[in-house]
Amino acid sequence: MISSSRDVLAINTIRFLSADAVQQANSGHPGLPMGAASLAHVLWTRHLRFDPAAPQWPDRDRFVLSAGHGSMLLYSLLHLSGFDLPLAEIQRFRQWGSITPGHPEFGHTPGVETTSGPLGQGFTNGVGMAMAAHHLAARYNRDGRSLFDHRVYGIVSDGDLMEGVASEAASLAGHLRLGRLIYLYDDNRISIDGSTDLTFTEDRAARFQAYGWHVTRVADVEDLGTIDRALAEAKADARPSLIVCRTHIGFGLPSRQDTAAAHGEPPGEEELKGAKERLGWPLEPRFLIPDEARLPFAEAARRGAQDHQAWEAMLQALRRSDPDLMREIDRRIAGDLPPGVARLVPTFPADAKGLATRAASGKVLNALAAAMPEIVGGSADLTTSNQTALKGEAAMSAENPGGRYIHYGVREHAMGGILSGLALHGGFIPFGGTFLIFSDYMRPAIRLASMMGIRVIYVFSHDSIGLGEDGPTHQPVEHLAALRAIPNLAVVRPADANETAAAWLTALERRDGPTALALTRQSVPTLDRTRFAPADGLRRGAYVLADLGDGPPHLVLMASGSEVELIVAAGEALSAEGVPVRLVSFPSWELFEAGSPEVRDQVLPPAVRARVAVEAGIAQGWSRWVGEAGEVVSLERFGASAPYKELFSHLGFTTDAVIAAARRSLERSAMMARAAG
Amino acid sequence: MISSSRDVLAINTIRFLSADAVQQANSGHPGLPMGAASLAHVLWTRHLRFDPAAPQWPDRDRFVLSAGHGSMLLYSLLHLSGFDLPLAEIQRFRQWGSITPGHPEFGHTPGVETTSGPLGQGFTNGVGMAMAAHHLAARYNRDGRSLFDHRVYGIVSDGDLMEGVASEAASLAGHLRLGRLIYLYDDNRISIDGSTDLTFTEDRAARFQAYGWHVTRVADVEDLGTIDRALAEAKADARPSLIVCRTHIGFGLPSRQDTAAAHGEPPGEEELKGAKERLGWPLEPRFLIPDEARLPFAEAARRGAQDHQAWEAMLQALRRSDPDLMREIDRRIAGDLPPGVARLVPTFPADAKGLATRAASGKVLNALAAAMPEIVGGSADLTTSNQTALKGEAAMSAENPGGRYIHYGVREHAMGGILSGLALHGGFIPFGGTFLIFSDYMRPAIRLASMMGIRVIYVFSHDSIGLGEDGPTHQPVEHLAALRAIPNLAVVRPADANETAAAWLTALERRDGPTALALTRQSVPTLDRTRFAPADGLRRGAYVLADLGDGPPHLVLMASGSEVELIVAAGEALSAEGVPVRLVSFPSWELFEAGSPEVRDQVLPPAVRARVAVEAGIAQGWSRWVGEAGEVVSLERFGASAPYKELFSHLGFTTDAVIAAARRSLERSAMMARAAG
Repeated sequence: MISSSRDVLAINTIRFLSADAVQQANSGHPGLPMGAASLAHVLWTRHLRFDPAAPQWPDRDRFVLSAGHGSMLLYSLLHLSGFDLPLAEIQRFRQWGSITPGHPEFGHTPGVETTSGPLGQGFTNGVGMAMAAHHLAARYNRDGRSLFDHRVYGIVSDGDLMEGVASEAASLAGHLRLGRLIYLYDDNRISIDGSTDLTFTEDRAARFQAYGWHVTRVADVEDLGTIDRALAEAKADARPSLIVCRTHIGFGLPSRQDTAAAHGEPPGEEELKGAKERLGWPLEPRFLIPDEARLPFAEAARRGAQDHQAWEAMLQALRRSDPDLMREIDRRIAGDLPPGVARLVPTFPADAKGLATRAASGKVLNALAAAMPEIVGGSADLTTSNQTALKGEAAMSAENPGGRYIHYGVREHAMGGILSGLALHGGFIPFGGTFLIFSDYMRPAIRLASMMGIRVIYVFSHDSIGLGEDGPTHQPVEHLAALRAIPNLAVVRPADANETAAAWLTALERRDGPTALALTRQSVPTLDRTRFAPADGLRRGAYVLADLGDGPPHLVLMASGSEVELIVAAGEALSAEGVPVRLVSFPSWELFEAGSPEVRDQVLPPAVRARVAVEAGIAQGWSRWVGEAGEVVSLERFGASAPYKELFSHLGFTTDAVIAAARRSLERSAMMARAAG
Repeated sequence: MISSSRDVLAINTIRFLSADAVQQANSGHPGLPMGAASLAHVLWTRHLRFDPAAPQWPDRDRFVLSAGHGSMLLYSLLHLSGFDLPLAEIQRFRQWGSITPGHPEFGHTPGVETTSGPLGQGFTNGVGMAMAAHHLAARYNRDGRSLFDHRVYGIVSDGDLMEGVASEAASLAGHLRLGRLIYLYDDNRISIDGSTDLTFTEDRAARFQAYGWHVTRVADVEDLGTIDRALAEAKADARPSLIVCRTHIGFGLPSRQDTAAAHGEPPGEEELKGAKERLGWPLEPRFLIPDEARLPFAEAARRGAQDHQAWEAMLQALRRSDPDLMREIDRRIAGDLPPGVARLVPTFPADAKGLATRAASGKVLNALAAAMPEIVGGSADLTTSNQTALKGEAAMSAENPGGRYIHYGVREHAMGGILSGLALHGGFIPFGGTFLIFSDYMRPAIRLASMMGIRVIYVFSHDSIGLGEDGPTHQPVEHLAALRAIPNLAVVRPADANETAAAWLTALERRDGPTALALTRQSVPTLDRTRFAPADGLRRGAYVLADLGDGPPHLVLMASGSEVELIVAAGEALSAEGVPVRLVSFPSWELFEAGSPEVRDQVLPPAVRARVAVEAGIAQGWSRWVGEAGEVVSLERFGASAPYKELFSHLGFTTDAVIAAARRSLERSAMMARAAG
């Protein structure tokens, strides 16, 4: 018998839509949707503000399912709410080509706000989204009008709360008093290995209170009123809220409820039948959606659509009364750059002494940020080192959420997730700085940003042994290779100040993926662009700086970043000896690969087999560019603690070493040519 | 005027030895040593148990300077305590070839217990060391004797407490009630960007109480009695302890004390002079060590030496009375494997259906662990998935610290640091399991383990798109390449059950660095070793499985892990067509590179230029092995959510695709040969 209560009907619809999908896929996670269905129902039908016809409405509330393994909960909600997610897709859960993958994927499914699954990441994205919401409200809500008044809701799990990245983000959220952030904690006391008593006995509520959060409890999640009241209370509180909800994983399953077996495998026919019987649900048909179950969602959607229309009308009026303001807002929402952005960046005069590319980056960033309020970011407690300070801009704080500079604290991983949250929210081009070495701390967040194809800019300074005395713990060696390994991340290591300016422009224009800038601590010469090709060549990933000597080159010397200085010196010496040398600045493999094979062959002519690549990091991957006759001057060990000039010398990054490698490659190439007759 | 108090004299000696060294190096971090000198002094002279003549004494207390940037504090303490760290080395702080690098490095400097600097890592290593201390005490202290009775002390900073990895580790330490762990928190209220008010306003004490820690405060660190009492109280408490010490960064510096400027740059001559004047210290000579200042350290060292002798005598007696027990203990301390360890592992019969290498790994691990009590470990909440369960072994818990199975919780990063802590402690061969994708979460800890050259075994299952429906968020694509990038980490991806056994043996025998095992979720055939070469070939990194067809090979097909199945099928098809094919199983680049060039040329004959590498991940780096005529069947995108067989097929991992790649390579190789005349 179908329960007579409309809410209970809707909740059970979520439960069995999810369980039927998992059972049909013979793969997935039924436990969370069945246990947290009532939380989601109350949130979505009574609080969440959304317009299914306009999933990109900027002033919508955001919903983050941080526990992404419970994806069927989200797909059920999206379908019931009227998003463009047909039942047929739910029936193809976890199948090739469906829009219902195993974990929610941003950009793949309408209404999915972030890609989640790796625990702690969604939690952290939500913190970034809430920072965005507070920031926009502080900046644009004035004169009694409320252009941005949305919240960020989420469902978070034990696993999320155990992950360090969420701890970092929670501390920052409390510090910033992000009252627009409200998380329902699915406290089911079960993780994959069994009871949370096995390993997770800390007092979670007390911990979040220590972070400065408002914490309440819902003891019985089948009592919908308490959920509703807890949400209302959370909305009224100026602090971020954690609502600790005592749920029962796999609610309804006769033998699996409250066990780890309910977490991540199909319930099986018997259990599923038992649950349906217990909750008074018809055994057939599968994927049953009683008409009445759709009603609460339809009402919520109708309210949302009305709110959305009112909001659009407000903006329309504002476009007439304050067109300048609305130009800015519209541009931010569209994610467009201001016209003539390339003219904003400074040009640096040739200078043999030069400056560190981190210093150039600071100047370029400031020039851009002055004209682009959407550039918001900061550093993980290395502001001066990363040169990320925004001159004249206040820090974001609880008192001033409109501040544009973010002190992330020593929280690189949270910074990564927050950057994604800001980008996902829309209206921001976020950046975050740390040492390149600490990109390792952020790697899971960088990967997800790359997968989501969002515009985030990582400012990684101190990009080699060139950082000197701090030693091997702080010297990246394998990091350029490891970052280049991530699909859809552009790694750009400019050689001088003017390439740094071009690198920033490239990062801004790259709308479909993040960019990592690798910048030197130490000074590098600002190349004389009357002798060398324009720095704008950086946009092609690799470009010919100059052909030295007469006739077609016999040798290609290529390098990225600070090592370009070495190939210039080596090339000059070799060409003085009569060897025609091509110098190639090679700041980005990804940008080079994105070009045509013809362009690549123009820069690296197949006929020229004597090639040397120079980079103060591991060789991994360079063999592709230098070929069998080539040489790589690289570093196949950890660094050491000493002044950087000594390190470069002791570890083999000298003009002489490059010349020696060039001679070996010339000889090998000649030998191969002789062998070829 | 030198202060009359011996303790104050010693404390100021630490301060100015450190500050003088930083000033002389013109690089380094004076703030922490000057601010925390009194903490360190009281700890080292009144509580820490150590014998400078025997820095490896197994029952010593461990001291971890998690805030590794304060390295000069540690070097000062080691020198004053009589470790083999001459003053001349302090005078060469941060110089090439010194044993006083910018951050403390394990294995480089006597008395340094771990490599620290990347924040949060030392904190986490200490948790692992404390787990080791509790475990050994529970296992070996009986009949009233106390073989292992040491503690783990550390100095931790704001930055450590902000890092998520430390949060994860702190939660687990509280859960396990690691009373042997005592951290002095250098609460100086300053981080690099300025006041901690900028970003770190959470209630740290309350947070640690929520984790189940004992938390006390020292309001005035110049009152040595309060530090002493707090340490005594902490030692008496059954919980891990955090002693929140209100310190003053750069204590004594006239204008820089209590500012970020004291953190990470030389004080400058004027400031240094001012500090010496304020604290009544002679301006000259630099590096002054009054004889009296050495006395408290000498007394502590003398006590430690006596304790050490008594301990050795106890062991000596036990070697007579309980030789079996002592054989085990001595072997564990020495880090030796039991004799005939290779005979412990099972041999798997040929089986076309086969089994997943994670399943084989579970069997091998259990066979080894049954005979080797030093094998201790577990999983980050994926026990069944990683197949890491130790049958018949209890879980480590507060009640049973002698349990060998560790439920790390959903705390991959802490797991990484704890594994290192267990290995650094000595007496353990630790292992930890998670999905290969989540190696990203652990990367900073893996890097440091590699740098330290310690024996840690990472069990990474679900090593490709072969995990199937969970989708791209959980499918490693770039992870093999990214792990191979880390110097001194051995990445081993066995092709079948018998290679998995060889992989475990290799990891055990690899004493000078960690090993990452990459294991399949899905079944792979167990190769028939009467047709193919013995799996023991894995130890060489790559080996010839078989030469198919007549005469010398015209083509080499190489693959790792689950893709070996594909090259076998492709090789059989091609050899049936008359192409002589060499099949190479290539489980580990690092092991292959460690061999001689001659061995490498035997496996991959330079004359055979038609080569195909197959791996369900990115190609990065494979071009080195396949050469210019070669092909790589790889995955240059993120995966997708679908049953795994469909994924392999849709994403190009089929026998046909390998054959097509082989034909392309054969053709290119022939073309190159023709061009060569």
